[in-house]
Amino acid sequence: MSNIMGQTITITLFGESHGASVGAVLDGLPAGEVIDWDQVRREMERRAPGRSALSTARAEADAFEIQSGFFNGYTTGTPLCAIIKNSDHHSRDYDHLRHVMRPGHADYTGKVRYGGFQDFRGGGHFSGRLTAPVVFAGAIASQLLSQRGVTVGAHILQIGSVQDQFFDPTGETEQRLRQLKEETLPVLEIEKAAAMEQYILEAKGQLDSVGGVIECMAIGLPAGVGNPFFDSVESRLSHMMFSIPAVKGIEFGDGFALAGMRGSQANDSFYYDGPVVKTRTNHNGGINGGITNGMPVVFRTVIKPTASISRRQETIDTDTGENCILEIQGRHDPCIVQRAVPVIEAAAAWTLLDLILTTPQGR
Amino acid sequence: MSNIMGQTITITLFGESHGASVGAVLDGLPAGEVIDWDQVRREMERRAPGRSALSTARAEADAFEIQSGFFNGYTTGTPLCAIIKNSDHHSRDYDHLRHVMRPGHADYTGKVRYGGFQDFRGGGHFSGRLTAPVVFAGAIASQLLSQRGVTVGAHILQIGSVQDQFFDPTGETEQRLRQLKEETLPVLEIEKAAAMEQYILEAKGQLDSVGGVIECMAIGLPAGVGNPFFDSVESRLSHMMFSIPAVKGIEFGDGFALAGMRGSQANDSFYYDGPVVKTRTNHNGGINGGITNGMPVVFRTVIKPTASISRRQETIDTDTGENCILEIQGRHDPCIVQRAVPVIEAAAAWTLLDLILTTPQGR
Amino acid sequence: MSNIMGQTITITLFGESHGASVGAVLDGLPAGEVIDWDQVRREMERRAPGRSALSTARAEADAFEIQSGFFNGYTTGTPLCAIIKNSDHHSRDYDHLRHVMRPGHADYTGKVRYGGFQDFRGGGHFSGRLTAPVVFAGAIASQLLSQRGVTVGAHILQIGSVQDQFFDPTGETEQRLRQLKEETLPVLEIEKAAAMEQYILEAKGQLDSVGGVIECMAIGLPAGVGNPFFDSVESRLSHMMFSIPAVKGIEFGDGFALAGMRGSQANDSFYYDGPVVKTRTNHNGGINGGITNGMPVVFRTVIKPTASISRRQETIDTDTGENCILEIQGRHDPCIVQRAVPVIEAAAAWTLLDLILTTPQGR
Amino acid sequence: MSNIMGQTITITLFGESHGASVGAVLDGLPAGEVIDWDQVRREMERRAPGRSALSTARAEADAFEIQSGFFNGYTTGTPLCAIIKNSDHHSRDYDHLRHVMRPGHADYTGKVRYGGFQDFRGGGHFSGRLTAPVVFAGAIASQLLSQRGVTVGAHILQIGSVQDQFFDPTGETEQRLRQLKEETLPVLEIEKAAAMEQYILEAKGQLDSVGGVIECMAIGLPAGVGNPFFDSVESRLSHMMFSIPAVKGIEFGDGFALAGMRGSQANDSFYYDGPVVKTRTNHNGGINGGITNGMPVVFRTVIKPTASISRRQETIDTDTGENCILEIQGRHDPCIVQRAVPVIEAAAAWTLLDLILTTPQGR
Repeated sequence: MSNIMGQTITITLFGESHGASVGAVLDGLPAGEVIDWDQVRREMERRAPGRSALSTARAEADAFEIQSGFFNGYTTGTPLCAIIKNSDHHSRDYDHLRHVMRPGHADYTGKVRYGGFQDFRGGGHFSGRLTAPVVFAGAIASQLLSQRGVTVGAHILQIGSVQDQFFDPTGETEQRLRQLKEETLPVLEIEKAAAMEQYILEAKGQLDSVGGVIECMAIGLPAGVGNPFFDSVESRLSHMMFSIPAVKGIEFGDGFALAGMRGSQANDSFYYDGPVVKTRTNHNGGINGGITNGMPVVFRTVIKPTASISRRQETIDTDTGENCILEIQGRHDPCIVQRAVPVIEAAAAWTLLDLILTTPQGR
Repeated sequence: MSNIMGQTITITLFGESHGASVGAVLDGLPAGEVIDWDQVRREMERRAPGRSALSTARAEADAFEIQSGFFNGYTTGTPLCAIIKNSDHHSRDYDHLRHVMRPGHADYTGKVRYGGFQDFRGGGHFSGRLTAPVVFAGAIASQLLSQRGVTVGAHILQIGSVQDQFFDPTGETEQRLRQLKEETLPVLEIEKAAAMEQYILEAKGQLDSVGGVIECMAIGLPAGVGNPFFDSVESRLSHMMFSIPAVKGIEFGDGFALAGMRGSQANDSFYYDGPVVKTRTNHNGGINGGITNGMPVVFRTVIKPTASISRRQETIDTDTGENCILEIQGRHDPCIVQRAVPVIEAAAAWTLLDLILTTPQGR
Repeated sequence: MSNIMGQTITITLFGESHGASVGAVLDGLPAGEVIDWDQVRREMERRAPGRSALSTARAEADAFEIQSGFFNGYTTGTPLCAIIKNSDHHSRDYDHLRHVMRPGHADYTGKVRYGGFQDFRGGGHFSGRLTAPVVFAGAIASQLLSQRGVTVGAHILQIGSVQDQFFDPTGETEQRLRQLKEETLPVLEIEKAAAMEQYILEAKGQLDSVGGVIECMAIGLPAGVGNPFFDSVESRLSHMMFSIPAVKGIEFGDGFALAGMRGSQANDSFYYDGPVVKTRTNHNGGINGGITNGMPVVFRTVIKPTASISRRQETIDTDTGENCILEIQGRHDPCIVQRAVPVIEAAAAWTLLDLILTTPQGR
Repeated sequence: MSNIMGQTITITLFGESHGASVGAVLDGLPAGEVIDWDQVRREMERRAPGRSALSTARAEADAFEIQSGFFNGYTTGTPLCAIIKNSDHHSRDYDHLRHVMRPGHADYTGKVRYGGFQDFRGGGHFSGRLTAPVVFAGAIASQLLSQRGVTVGAHILQIGSVQDQFFDPTGETEQRLRQLKEETLPVLEIEKAAAMEQYILEAKGQLDSVGGVIECMAIGLPAGVGNPFFDSVESRLSHMMFSIPAVKGIEFGDGFALAGMRGSQANDSFYYDGPVVKTRTNHNGGINGGITNGMPVVFRTVIKPTASISRRQETIDTDTGENCILEIQGRHDPCIVQRAVPVIEAAAAWTLLDLILTTPQGR
């Protein structure tokens, strides 16, 4: 069920970049929840293009229209559908790309998979625009998590050669996680934002693009969430994260650095902090055996450099059956990492809420 | 559905380390397939403990008994169930651990999740022993993939500070992938095996353990496999991989290194090699937009150091409600990376076969 | 996943009777299919209210708007979303019903299930209006089935005391099944239509309503479709049928009459009609062991009398916590059986297409 | 996922009549539940063959062996697997049936579906023997339901021309439902048992078989259980029921009789019985809009006459490609209705428990 995700709460995604709308159906949300729609709009604005010189000039309103599932100020418990109309189309920009496969994009793989019938304009169903309904869903999930004492936040750990410091793995404050959401380039070391911006603009000047790493943390999660063998917290979060275009890696806790550590270093010692069980370190990212242990859940995802660049690139023309040279016109983000931050947060929030709601009542 | 995985072919896993048996029900396998059971046994031996000084002395036979789904030399198309009886129990080894939470293990999280009713002996359902039926399933899947021209292989890229070279991302030969399966420590640079062994034994001598990185490659996959938005090849593979105990990170193609690259470097140029579409590089690991592009699928997973170590560790006693000191007796693997190699291959094979079978007929 | 149905092709349903819209997301449809939208509109008109004195005067346009999944005249293979805007609201009609539980409706059960937050206007998510997107989905499925030689048709077997003859269980012609779709009251014995109409109008005059039985047949199905143990053709069809409001029973083949038969009567003898395997009778409704045998699939569903009637009824007021008398104002269908016919056909078409597409390629 | 059923609790079924074993994996059961295994055995004995002259002489022990999921006297919360070894094989009885398709059985459809590779002995995976693990699962579910105040019971409403009276639709006592489980032929009018037995033996004497109707009731269910649109109580129960071999119809409440009723008759009036909401009648079988209303859930299923009869029957030989005459040797049940009673109860208990556990916590 390729466009459906989740167990107790499910998201069904639809839409193409240049179709009538993109949207989502959210099923299984608890009834009787108040939703702060302004807060949802703010989250969606964080993802929206055209906010700075760092992103594409395409200015989508990203205004959502609720179709169902919200009545008299509360969720109804029945499916909540929202559509986000597409606008600001320059569909003609893509006409000449019908047979020319952009490297790094899904043009070729989509063509093979769907026999050439896929909507190729602007990436169609593969477009980053599909992350708009993901942010919509995540913004709702965040509000429900907040009631349960859970906060999800993220910062840009790396853009190209510019590296931010790591989160304190044993915990950041809710306030700090929330403050990060106010920044265009959310970082822990404030001076790194300027360095990252400069790095991005330099690449842009060279008609090129850059990638980065986003570090995400969820605090306030109770211990005991997760359903091994196959529905570990890591499994469910990674499944969701790799759905987001451009994500090519994920690690939990110390991740790949664990390969160079000894067991005596990597094991997080438990201790009683009064009645509360904690670990002194958090190399395992708050997860043991696929289940939360009450410490912050920490993970990092890598975002590859934006595939759309204006440089000349070698590729194929499936119409002529010959190799060719491509120069993409149009508007591109030299870096999508900062726009991916709210998407990663939203995807994490949705997944964690589903995991919490799916955990048996009595456990 | 926490112990069920897959769409067209599903695996339902059951068992605990010290219960009657572990096993799996495989549903949806095509009818009429010949299975080479000796080949399945060889794969299971690769995972089995007790093969060398590098792993635990616990000598499980790992002999499987087919309960159903195989008749007159062929798969029937109805569920194939296999059980692997447990033996060589030293259940008493674990009695004193009932209330003492081993760091790095699921003792505490499992206790919270299942209210203390989980089988705690030897990790119970969280034991690495649950990977035996995964290897069983994967060994069957490998044979079906082989008929379709697909081969999955893996090597140890890193153990502690010892690093093997990378696979050639544009492709290794089937022969080389198969040869790796013959080695206890499968590496590309043959001299690295001895260095890794020495590194592991050194840690063992210090009552400690080590982790590592496994690089896995699947060759021969057709282009067009994968089902975005949510069932991308990366999503499905990562979901499965994080089910395997001790896996804490996964990356596809150049993975985290993409954060330091430019778009002009990261994009893999397409070209016609005769009628065949290929890419000159493979920074994207054979996957664009969540769909295979016909190049080898390449990914790396990190295996954390074995959580079971004999060193003194601080932890909690949930019976007394106080902090305490733990010294684990019994048999431990100083390194499980080499035993994880066939598990990773098996998990990949099962997942890729499911993805291939789920891809629509006419696409 | 309460509002999602299907395996290879899935339908996600949303909407309430008096919300912005009702609609569906259809995922997994094959790419490259031409859809005759006029034909879809005709199917939806068959279900739409206001067509005759037999149904409610509420005149919904039931015009659908495609949001995604259809491009350049073909299905794209990615999710096809359609919304059907609601109009002609008389929401005020329902205000006084907020606390008065209409007998036979989901007012009370919905209130308990959703804690009183459900949209109660016009039945909300429980409204028969939710069958509009089901007909939309089924009309598409019918076209894809038609390409595969499969036709689904239905007639009204019974309304109150008026009984039509049964389908010939060994097969009706495609032409006859198609002709039935042209009729307001589709029956096999043409004179029964008038008798049924009279019966309905008589009940209407008494401020009452009537129910009936619909007999449905699918011809042209290949043998070998269905996936026991749990996904038998009967299981999948019945699951779908009982989703349709007012359906309270289903039987396949001779159904309940089989209780009075002997095995020697009920068994359908196989024979070769040239190279084709057929059965001489069809007491089993074209299904043996949950799998199609190549004969027509035949089933009957009972539609209970419309719950909305204008007569005085006893019920409860959950606001006062006391028993009360209800007199429903507004527009009601004295009989929905005729409007349910295209819904049953659509639901069957969608389910059968999913079953066909889910049957393994090589079987 | 053809052999997997359920949402919060899932059953994965495996096995063939003449393979090593049949069994089930039950996943998602709450942890910490005590199971009365003797009670489970009693339920399985009700289904087991060889108990009277009315059923086959094949005497299977139906002894189950727990593989996992039960530890120290409690469910663990991880998968509970049980296998039931097959014994008393007369596999040779079936050798000559390999190419001769028994009417009313799945021989032909299974052959087409699985390309001839299915285990054809004794019906293989289509055998009624697969209901043994269903009864096992249901017997566990019944105990968990009992803790929640829910009791499921059933009686034989009809065998051939012998008709028992109906349950009182507004409720039977728990005691009466339990007493019925003690009878070989559970009926409400005690004298009907002898009449049914005589009817069955008469058919047996004629080398023939009979069918019947089972009426099932669940009392004690809370209002508010069920998940429309697609996971109505009727949808979920019917899906499960049609998985049981020989079931060809199901109706809820007054079922097909509703076709002859008026709305004013069919609507069940609500009233307050003190603080408790009840309905004065129960024509809707305790379900409105797919959700329980707190009244007993009542449904009836028809069981077709046993397909295996010793009479000469016409059929086809797929080896010769010609029509032929079949005379089945071996042991047959002249009637399986009485053995189906505990299966229907078990299937209902499992499904209702899943629905209860899946209903959101706060609703």
